[in-house]
Amino acid sequence: MQTVQSKSYKAINFSEKFKLFSEQWTPKVVAELNDYQFKIVRIEGDFVWHDHPETDEAFIVLDGELRIDFRDGFVTIKPGEMYVVPKGVAHKPYAETEVRLMLIEPRGVLNTGHEGGERTAQNDVWV
Amino acid sequence: MQTVQSKSYKAINFSEKFKLFSEQWTPKVVAELNDYQFKIVRIEGDFVWHDHPETDEAFIVLDGELRIDFRDGFVTIKPGEMYVVPKGVAHKPYAETEVRLMLIEPRGVLNTGHEGGERTAQNDVWV
Repeated sequence: MQTVQSKSYKAINFSEKFKLFSEQWTPKVVAELNDYQFKIVRIEGDFVWHDHPETDEAFIVLDGELRIDFRDGFVTIKPGEMYVVPKGVAHKPYAETEVRLMLIEPRGVLNTGHEGGERTAQNDVWV
Repeated sequence: MQTVQSKSYKAINFSEKFKLFSEQWTPKVVAELNDYQFKIVRIEGDFVWHDHPETDEAFIVLDGELRIDFRDGFVTIKPGEMYVVPKGVAHKPYAETEVRLMLIEPRGVLNTGHEGGERTAQNDVWV
């Protein structure tokens, strides 16, 4: 008699993933979609002004409140909200208290764009 | 005297977007990231078996519980969780009660893949 195998696959749970690291400003990959990556990150304080000349960048806030400053204004993003920064648009993320968010962008995009500096995180680190 | 203009941009709020439609099984685009789309959808009951031979497909559950059946098993996805169905993998979404979720996939992907049928929704409808 043949037995039907029913395998239980596991979803990616954001809270569980955040328990695996505490450092800020270091995006960690949790999933890939074709050549795009979903990265979670904790941020607090001011980031550097930068842009990504080759790609848009999506921000989905999971916990806390994120502000992204632009040269001509800003956007505030809360849990249950998202925003897409168009390619080439200079932006500076800011969080008064720690915010947990997800970034979606093509594989290989550096967090600081082409600005470099001490905030530049190692790329393609999975959690 | 020059006045600095500070424009307030608006984040995409998923709850607000869901208030704008009540029909099920009809994905609505809320944002684009390069040639990818973020679509929100309400589903309840059984979908059709289908696959997407050309692309992976990401599911992020916002409210309720989604089960995706595969030929050899299943995955359950709850709020705060996501799952990426690899390209070419046959799957059948199911929700016992209404679930609200977000799909992320390239522009132009039909909800039923190449299966057609009455569940096939109009593509590229924004909300």
